Parts: sequence; structure tokens; C-alpha cells
Amino acid sequence: MSVRVGVIGVGNIGQEHIRRLTRAVSGAQVVALADVDSARAEAVASGLSGARVHPTGQDLIRADDVDGVVVATWGPTHEEYVLAAIEAGKPVFCEKPLAPTVDECLRILDAEVARGRRLVQVGFNRRYDGAYSAMKAAISNDAALGTPLMVHCAHRNQDVPPHYTGGMPITDTAIHEIDIVRWLLDQEIVAARVLKPRRTSRAHANLQDPLIVIMEMTDGAIVDVEVFVTLPYGYDIRCEVVCELGTVALGDGSPIVLRKDGMRSDHVPNDFQERFVRAYDTEFQEWVDSVVSGQATGPSAWDGYAATAVADACLAALDSGQREMVQLKERPRFYGPREALTAVGGAR
Amino acid sequence: MSVRVGVIGVGNIGQEHIRRLTRAVSGAQVVALADVDSARAEAVASGLSGARVHPTGQDLIRADDVDGVVVATWGPTHEEYVLAAIEAGKPVFCEKPLAPTVDECLRILDAEVARGRRLVQVGFNRRYDGAYSAMKAAISNDAALGTPLMVHCAHRNQDVPPHYTGGMPITDTAIHEIDIVRWLLDQEIVAARVLKPRRTSRAHANLQDPLIVIMEMTDGAIVDVEVFVTLPYGYDIRCEVVCELGTVALGDGSPIVLRKDGMRSDHVPNDFQERFVRAYDTEFQEWVDSVVSGQATGPSAWDGYAATAVADACLAALDSGQREMVQLKERPRFYGPREALTAVGGAR
Amino acid sequence: MSVRVGVIGVGNIGQEHIRRLTRAVSGAQVVALADVDSARAEAVASGLSGARVHPTGQDLIRADDVDGVVVATWGPTHEEYVLAAIEAGKPVFCEKPLAPTVDECLRILDAEVARGRRLVQVGFNRRYDGAYSAMKAAISNDAALGTPLMVHCAHRNQDVPPHYTGGMPITDTAIHEIDIVRWLLDQEIVAARVLKPRRTSRAHANLQDPLIVIMEMTDGAIVDVEVFVTLPYGYDIRCEVVCELGTVALGDGSPIVLRKDGMRSDHVPNDFQERFVRAYDTEFQEWVDSVVSGQATGPSAWDGYAATAVADACLAALDSGQREMVQLKERPRFYGPREALTAVGGAR
Amino acid sequence: MSVRVGVIGVGNIGQEHIRRLTRAVSGAQVVALADVDSARAEAVASGLSGARVHPTGQDLIRADDVDGVVVATWGPTHEEYVLAAIEAGKPVFCEKPLAPTVDECLRILDAEVARGRRLVQVGFNRRYDGAYSAMKAAISNDAALGTPLMVHCAHRNQDVPPHYTGGMPITDTAIHEIDIVRWLLDQEIVAARVLKPRRTSRAHANLQDPLIVIMEMTDGAIVDVEVFVTLPYGYDIRCEVVCELGTVALGDGSPIVLRKDGMRSDHVPNDFQERFVRAYDTEFQEWVDSVVSGQATGPSAWDGYAATAVADACLAALDSGQREMVQLKERPRFYGPREALTAVGGAR
Repeated sequence: MSVRVGVIGVGNIGQEHIRRLTRAVSGAQVVALADVDSARAEAVASGLSGARVHPTGQDLIRADDVDGVVVATWGPTHEEYVLAAIEAGKPVFCEKPLAPTVDECLRILDAEVARGRRLVQVGFNRRYDGAYSAMKAAISNDAALGTPLMVHCAHRNQDVPPHYTGGMPITDTAIHEIDIVRWLLDQEIVAARVLKPRRTSRAHANLQDPLIVIMEMTDGAIVDVEVFVTLPYGYDIRCEVVCELGTVALGDGSPIVLRKDGMRSDHVPNDFQERFVRAYDTEFQEWVDSVVSGQATGPSAWDGYAATAVADACLAALDSGQREMVQLKERPRFYGPREALTAVGGAR
Repeated sequence: MSVRVGVIGVGNIGQEHIRRLTRAVSGAQVVALADVDSARAEAVASGLSGARVHPTGQDLIRADDVDGVVVATWGPTHEEYVLAAIEAGKPVFCEKPLAPTVDECLRILDAEVARGRRLVQVGFNRRYDGAYSAMKAAISNDAALGTPLMVHCAHRNQDVPPHYTGGMPITDTAIHEIDIVRWLLDQEIVAARVLKPRRTSRAHANLQDPLIVIMEMTDGAIVDVEVFVTLPYGYDIRCEVVCELGTVALGDGSPIVLRKDGMRSDHVPNDFQERFVRAYDTEFQEWVDSVVSGQATGPSAWDGYAATAVADACLAALDSGQREMVQLKERPRFYGPREALTAVGGAR
Repeated sequence: MSVRVGVIGVGNIGQEHIRRLTRAVSGAQVVALADVDSARAEAVASGLSGARVHPTGQDLIRADDVDGVVVATWGPTHEEYVLAAIEAGKPVFCEKPLAPTVDECLRILDAEVARGRRLVQVGFNRRYDGAYSAMKAAISNDAALGTPLMVHCAHRNQDVPPHYTGGMPITDTAIHEIDIVRWLLDQEIVAARVLKPRRTSRAHANLQDPLIVIMEMTDGAIVDVEVFVTLPYGYDIRCEVVCELGTVALGDGSPIVLRKDGMRSDHVPNDFQERFVRAYDTEFQEWVDSVVSGQATGPSAWDGYAATAVADACLAALDSGQREMVQLKERPRFYGPREALTAVGGAR
Repeated sequence: MSVRVGVIGVGNIGQEHIRRLTRAVSGAQVVALADVDSARAEAVASGLSGARVHPTGQDLIRADDVDGVVVATWGPTHEEYVLAAIEAGKPVFCEKPLAPTVDECLRILDAEVARGRRLVQVGFNRRYDGAYSAMKAAISNDAALGTPLMVHCAHRNQDVPPHYTGGMPITDTAIHEIDIVRWLLDQEIVAARVLKPRRTSRAHANLQDPLIVIMEMTDGAIVDVEVFVTLPYGYDIRCEVVCELGTVALGDGSPIVLRKDGMRSDHVPNDFQERFVRAYDTEFQEWVDSVVSGQATGPSAWDGYAATAVADACLAALDSGQREMVQLKERPRFYGPREALTAVGGAR
């Protein structure tokens, strides 16, 4: 019994997810597409066997033969589609961000709580990466490291397109670390500041690059994140959790080692797709499985809301140069005790 | 259109492949099972939706609703099932070894050549491991390392069961290196010797452990393989190809690094499943894809035959203490120019 | 022609330097000792051939047979001895800090400038460590990394004695990073803030541990330093300079790798002596050589003053929770163009 | 009290040792030189204070003001000078080989035994390398690895001069591994064979490069050594001892790590001087100390003889293509129980 999936938004990322659902994930088939550019939707559909194009996302969501919905449109449209899926009682996988503003996120939370069933999963794919999972296991108990006190992260990217400016190092880039440290430490972020180091000469106009984002967790642990998106050597994601008795860090994970020209070298990934391709596959497999089981497991609407709220505080701090508090409403009991939300992301 | 697969032999490895075909691979469904222990076959079938148990492997192979066959029985029965699949004109995935004796392998070669179509794939899963693929790419051209001259390998295993004795370090363990160096260097192995270092006190009676297997390639390159199957620290697979201008080796690939108790450490895999789980998944995905396309791609019956012939030379060398030549018949044109056989195993 | 050295203060560190001058360094002999505990001085002298004990440091400095002076007493006495050495026109190696207060440092600066000859070297030994030297070479030109924008450091120590409290994580520990980043980047530090992460349960009373010290360089580069002095896994010094085109970091430098019990491990140093023993040897060799040549080369009185001034800003920031500016007088031309001060510390 | 050293042979290596004794080692001074090229000896002497040139090595050895002798001439002259030093009762440091032929070595053994006092130290510098020392400590007891069963080594060199031909990969290169595995495992080598892999196109005429040397220890452990002297990527020395419970290997020891151009890299040493400079310093310091104490500690004449005997077996094996036995006379009691000979080489 395959899960019949409808995909709204068939741009690059939508097509990537379609390929994933079709080729890499078992138990799913893509039966429905919708896109503001209907010609593009038709073109994509023609490469699939048995996928129908719907005039709008709303139509797709309502279609009887659609069991679950993937929202891969741009952020400002997310609320509309996610609310419709909740109303239809269908599980929905929504790419990050859940929604660009806290208000939109809150309306989604309210709708899901009113519906009385978890239907929303947000696309924070790093939780499904084997290395982050192993870090979480080490922190949680396996390695007897004691209480986490600090987390040092770096998020380095080779380059960004010209329209990547302003607050996007926060909302498009650091957003991944915002989610992953909440998940690793199983706590909320309560305050943030943003430091501006000397600007690289390679940054586009209107882009302050690099940044250092400093965040404080509920229990006082401090997280620092270097965000550097025009560092041309590669896509390098680093993370070390410093605990009372020791530390755990992402390894380099190099599959091979070259010895040549006076150097012993291994390869740094080119981009997020090379680094996290398997995490995406696992993420979608677990989502499909959760649709089958009727039991939501992944990052929740609450996680999407919290990430947007923290990003808001970071944007304020980027603007003010000051420490800014995160404004977070009390978590509805509906989203369960914290521990219930974190039992995800095991290696497939 | 799913490929309908029948699995003969539902012991540990057969069940593992069933799980893989059902859960990790897209485009396949397991519809038929057979096992000498029919109760076991029924028990496994009861956990699958729509899988029928056949009284014999031969019945399964003949069944109209079976598109492809997986042979996961013990070695001495392989010939019978593989020949039947060839006769039925159905693609067959045969676990290693293709067959325990050279004569059996030759009969399979003859049958496949007579049938005029490549139908047999042998389960040499390492060709589908991302690290070995990256090594092959580096050697082939990417890294401009020049001609390979030596390969140093180690195959270390924590422990083996009591029935693992005699020549099994060759036929069950070094067999993986025999295949992978043929593939990496795109050459045949022409001679072998086996050295017996001081025996570990941990080896079972009737087991000489460790061994050093030394093999010579067509062009004179020399391969040494440490085979050590009762070294308790972990499952450690190492390989370095030494070329004229540099070398390429398997990396340690550690996902995380722990700092604790005076040490900086990463984890060594426990066993082959932990180390090669993804390679198995990729191997089966590519086999399923090849069944769909009708175009065989993986390790061929020739590769299975050559591995058995090299293992024979190694067993003779283990016995004689001398250098022994590999007896290999001329390769049928049917198996194509060498280069045609090696275009497999790209990262999925 | 040996340099005849007098050592004031023969506690642990003084004795260590005596051993070094006697056993590890060529071209020096220890001929004079002084200590407030004259019995201790006599005991140490009895283990040396031809070393005389002087009643006071001042006597030692004035002795005709003393060519150079090592000051290894506690900080508050440094000014007195360094000023006396300057007055006597004798080269003086002063352990860090040059002096605990900025005022004392300034009086030393003034005296040395008035004397018209560089006589003071401050014991910032890391400049003589081969790994830091290689980092500086990589930044300076060798590796074409572009302009440095950020430096991430960690200074981790297994434990500290009960009297280590209050500001000592700054004045005794981070002081090394304060000097080394000035040297690596060839700039002054202009501002500092100090963050207090969740406190480890292992910290002694009256000790906030860990700390994160954030410093800004003249050109806007930002330095963060994790100072964690009760992290029991080992003495771990880490540093990465992030430049426009790439980064350079201290390696792990492990001499051996163990594979055992499921782990691939190397050893973390126990303490600063294990980690920096060779740097101390090189530091003293270069000082002895500079005494012979009459040409001062090492960290200058200016470097000692600047480090104390930065530490003052850090202490103020630790207290205020705010960003604090470093108060630094204009550098006397006597201490040369910056570049002249940095041509030190090549691998021996 | 400085040790007054005479150096016979002031070519490159002799000058290097003079620099070492003068600049890096404490407690020694070079007072006498001799060389077949007396003009060269005079030139070198002119750069030293107080060094006299002697007409012959024999004159130098007899000079009253010479406490110890360093022999840095070419191999065929070693016997003459070492015998003269023994006769004069003076400690002699002889560069490897002790002598090119077994017969010469045996005459030195006989003379030293007859003299009744250990006077000869052979220049096997790797025993003084910190990484090899740490390996030996790990094997001996520290790491509870169990009995050693195999050793895998590689000795890679960027290039060799045109006169490096024939057996020199054994006598000039593998000789280091011959000594170090005897020392690491505290056993003699009893048999050897040499394999000839495909020849690199970069090898000079009359040079078979690379080679694989396989040696058997007294207790059956097997050692394999890749000797590759025209591999241009760097000077790379590798060694792993495989024991019953785990392994210990030389680490990469990289002081820094570069991230640039898609690679994470560290530097491979250029040559033996870069890699082993500190080992040479320590070796000479310990020799000077042993002259002072009157207690020989380093590699003995027996070690020199054994290395030459093993090299002879390797040369025979290179010629015959067969396994050849090492011909070794019984060790004189004079050279003590084995364990007494190995208590050297601790980190300085």
C-alpha cells in the first residue's frame, strides 16, 4: 500500500523531492502536482507515470487520491497550504520555514491544536543526518559526557546568489543551527546577539558576511555560530558540544584520503546536497512511514514556530547590536512533554 | 511498475535482503519465497503482504509472477538455481560465491553465453560502497596519480564462529579483496602466495589467523592483504593504492569525534553490516534498476568465476607455502571488453 | 663563550628554567641564583656546578659575572627586578605577566625607552611553538588564504588549584591567547566582552568556569576564546584562523594512533608542559642567542604591556557584562614598526 | 664539564652533526676535525671556535683533548676508525652502517668484547623519535595490546640521486626499518624475502623501485616494508604494529590543518631531515650524556652487526627471488640480555 503524495511547488526543490519520493524512498508514489506555473507542472508530470496536475494547491489538497501533501513553494504561501491540509485532515510535509512570520506560525499552531491531531512536519532535515544523530546519542547518555555547557558551530558556504542579502544569513542559513541546537540540547533558545566581524571583500553589496550569532539556551548554555556564506573553499558544517566531562563534535567523515604534491588531503563537500543527501532521503522515508502509521514523528509545527521566533530575535539583534530576548508563547500541552518531540531522527 | 522478486533461501542473509527490497529499495516487491525449511519460509511470508511460498526454488523460478530471482542459499546450491534462472531467461542476483568450485562457475558461464544475454549478477557489494567508488575515480583519472603499482589492504573482523576454519579466511573473507582489487585496477590476478604470521592465541582450533595474502596483477602490480578475523577491536577495512605520483586510501570516515578521558577518539564499526549497509542498499537498487532496464550492470558471472579461480590459487598457496599461478580460461567476448564491465558502482 | 645567567626565583617554574638552561639549551650556564627563601636557593644551587647564591635579586643583577637575568618570581615583584636589570644594562627574561598592572608596565616601558636599548623579553612561549609558527606562516603569505576575519580559540585545562579564582581565567589563562592573536594577526586588540555560559558543576567555589572571551582587533576581525579550566579530559589548545579564502587551524599532532576496544584514538596532552615543552626550549635558546648577539628578538615590553592592558579590559567586561574598550597608549617609535616585532619564533 | 668531541668526516652529514653538537646539544664542544679533504676540514674549522684540524682520523682519535669520536665518513672506512677508537678506549658514535660487510662488523664486535667495555654507538636515529618511542611504550605494556603478530611499514622518499642503484633500497633505506622492528619487537629477524612490484616509470635506470621487503621475526611475527624512493609526493614514514587485541601506528602528526580549494589538508614532510630532526638532536644529546656517565645506552655494535646481516639476507633474496635465512652468530653475553639493550630512546 503506497502512500499517494501530492507535491505543491515543482521548482528545483520540489523536483528534488519528487525524485526522492519516486526513486529513493520506498512506499510512496507521487500522484498529484500543482504549481503557479502550470506549464512547469505539466512538464514535470510528463516524466512521471500516473501523476495528475491540479489547477491549484487547494485542489490538490482536496483530491480524494492524495494521502499526504508536500509543500515546496516559497515561504509566504506556506500558511495557506498548511492550513488547508490541516482542515482536510491530511499529513503535510512543509519545507522550512514553516512560515516567515511568527503570526502565521501561530495560526498554524492554533489550527493544528484545534484539529486535535499532529499533521504538520517541518523540513529540518539535519535531524536525520547520521552524524548529528550520533552526537545527540553521545550527549544524551551514551558517552557519559555530563551536562552540555557550550556549543560551537560553523556554517560555511561557498557562495550565495545576488538576491541573498540582509537578514538571509539568519533566516536561510543559521536557521539550521537554530533548529539543531534546540534538538541536540532539548531546550529552547531564550536570547540572541549577533556580532559583525571584519567583512570579507568577497561579499556582495548589501551583505554583511561573515556573522557570529550567539544564543543562550534555557539552562544557560551558550551557542556560537559562525555564519560565513562566501568562503569559497567548500561547504563545511561544524559543530562541537562542550560538556562537563568532555566534548563531542562532527567528524570530517572523509571517505578517502589522497597523498599527493606534498599534502595529505581529503575532500570538503561542495554544497548542502552533497553533505546532506542521505539526510533528505531518510527524512522523507520517515515522513512516508509516519503517514502510513498515522503517528507524526518529525519536527513539529511548534519547532517551526520556535525557529521563526528565534530568527526574529536574531534579526532584531543584527539590527540593534544588542542582546535581544526571544519572545516565545507557552508551549501547548498538545505538543507534549519535550522528550516526546525528540524521539526522531535515528539512522535509517 | 514494480519488479516482482522471488527470494530463494530465507535465512539471515535472505531475510536481510527481503527487508532491503521491501523497505530501502524503490521499485521492487517481494512476491515469492522458497526455502528448504518451508516452515521458515511461511513464517517470513506471513510478515510480508502478498508473498507466496513455493515448494522449491525451481518452482519459484518458473512462476509467472516472478520477474527476477535472488539466490541467498548456501554456496553448493547456487549452480542449480542460477542455471535454472538462466534457462528461464530471468535476471538472477546470486550471493557470493557464484559457486564454490571453478567447474560449477564454468558451467554457469557456458549457460549464460549460450543464452546470449547477461542475466547473472554476483553479490560483490563493495563495488557499491561510496568510499571504494571514490578511490576508483581517483585512480582512474580524477586525481592524476599515475599508474598503480601496489595495493595494501587489511580485512579485520572481531570474531568468527567455531565452524569458520581451514580455507575460509580465503573463501569467505579475502574473497572481497580479491574482487575489489580486480575492479579497482581493472585487471586480473595472475598469481598468489599466502604467508602465515605468528598465530594469535585467540584463534579457534583449526584456524590459522592472521594470514597475509599476496597477489600479483596482470601488469605486475602487487597486492597484499592482511586477513585477521579474531582481532577484537572492531571491523576495520583498509585499502591504499600506491601509484607512481601519490596514493589514495580509504578514510576513517568517522561521523563524530569524542574527546574524553585523555583521548580523542572515533568509533570503529562493529561489523560488516554497520560498515557496508548503504553499499548493500545501493547494490540492490542498481540490480532492481537493471532488471527494469533489461541491461545488466553489476559484477558478472565472469567476475564470480575469476574470484573463485583466484581463491583456488590462494588455497593451493596456503597449502603449499609456495607461489601459485591462477588458472583462468580466456574471457569470452560475450563479457565484453574489460572496460565495459567496470562501469558500475557509482554513488547512488 | 657561554652566556652566564642569573635566575631570580627558584620555585617550580624557576627550577624548570634552570634545568632547561642547563640541559636543553646550548651556550648558557646558570651561575647565580636568588630567592626570598634562601635555603631553597642553596638547595637548588647544590645541584648545579658553579652556581652562587646571592642574598637578593638586586645583588644578583649587579653581579659582574651575570650576563643575563631570568625573572621567575611572582608577578608583583617583576617591576622591581626588570627595572634593575634595565638600569644595569643587562638583558632580562621576565616570565609573564610583565607586571600585573598597567602602571607598572608603563614604568618599565619608560625605563627601557630611556635606556635606549631593548633589554626586556617577556615569556610568551607559544610564539615559539612550531604549530603556531606554521599557522603564522600560512596566514602571512604561504598559503594565500587572504585577510583573516575571525579566530576561534579554545583553552582547556584539566583542573586548577583552589586559589585559582576570580579573574584568573583571564590573567593566567586567556592571557596566552591575548598574546598569540596579537602576534598571529599582527594587530592590537581594541575591545573585549566576556560571556558566562552555564557553570560547570566541577568548578571550585568563586570560579566562573567556563568563560567565552570575545575580542575585536584593530581592523575589525573578531576573536572568540573558550576558556575552560576544569574540563578533565586533557589539556587541549585549539585555534583556527578564518580568512577570506580558507582557514588554518592547529592540528591534533598525534604521534601515534591506537586501535583498541572499538575506538580509533590518540592521546590528548595532560598539561601545558607536555604540550609546550619544546616551545619553552626554543624560547630560551633564542633568548640566549639574542643575549650573545646583543639583538633582542622575542616578545617585547610593549607586548607585555599590551597584554596586561587587554586583560584589564577583559576583567572590566567580566565584571560589567558589557563590551569594554582597551585603553592603550600610542606605541613608542622605539618599539619599531609592528612588522619588526614579529620576526621571531621560527622553528628552531 | 663539556665533552670534547672529534668529528671524522665533515661532508654534509658531518657538518650537520657538528652544527647539532654545537647548537642543539648541551654539554658538548667540537674540538677536533679530520677529513680526507683537509681543505674542507680547515674551512669547517674556521667557522668553529677552538676546533683543531688533524691530519688523519687516527691522529684525531689519539689526541689527548678528544673525549669522544663521531665517525661520519663513508661506510668502507668505518671499521678502521671504530677499531682505533676502541683501542684508544674512547666512546665512538658511528653513523650507519656500522660497516658494510658482516666480517668487518664481526671484527668490531670482537674488539669491543676484548676491550671489555661498550664504546660503540651506531647511528640508528629513529629509536630517538618520539613517535616510535610512544609506539614501543604502547606495545611493551602501556596499551595492553597483547603480542605483536605483524608489522606493516612504508618508507617513501621523493627522489634519489643517480648513483643510488642496485641494493641501495635495502642498505640505505630499508636498513632503518630493519633496525626499528628489531627494537620495537625486541627480537631478531630470521628470514627475508623481497618482492618486486611493477616498476615505476620514474625510477632511474638500474633501480628496481618500489620493492616490498618481507621479514620474519624470531617468534614468527611477519614484517612487510614498502620501500619506494621515487614517489614524489613527500617523505612519508609509516608503521603499524598489529597485536592480538589491537594495533598501534605512527600518527600523521600534522601541526596545522589547512582548509582551502575544496580540500582539508596537512603537510607531508619533504625529507628525512624535516621528519627526524628532533630525533637526531635527542640521539646526540643522549650520546653526549652517555659519554659523561661512562655508561653506553644507544644502539650497540651488536645492533649494527645484526642490521648488516639482515641486509645481506635481503640482498640475497632480492637476487634469488627466494626466501633467504639470516645468518647470525650467537650473541655474546657481553651485549647483555636483550632487555638491557632496549632501555633507550625515551623522549628527551
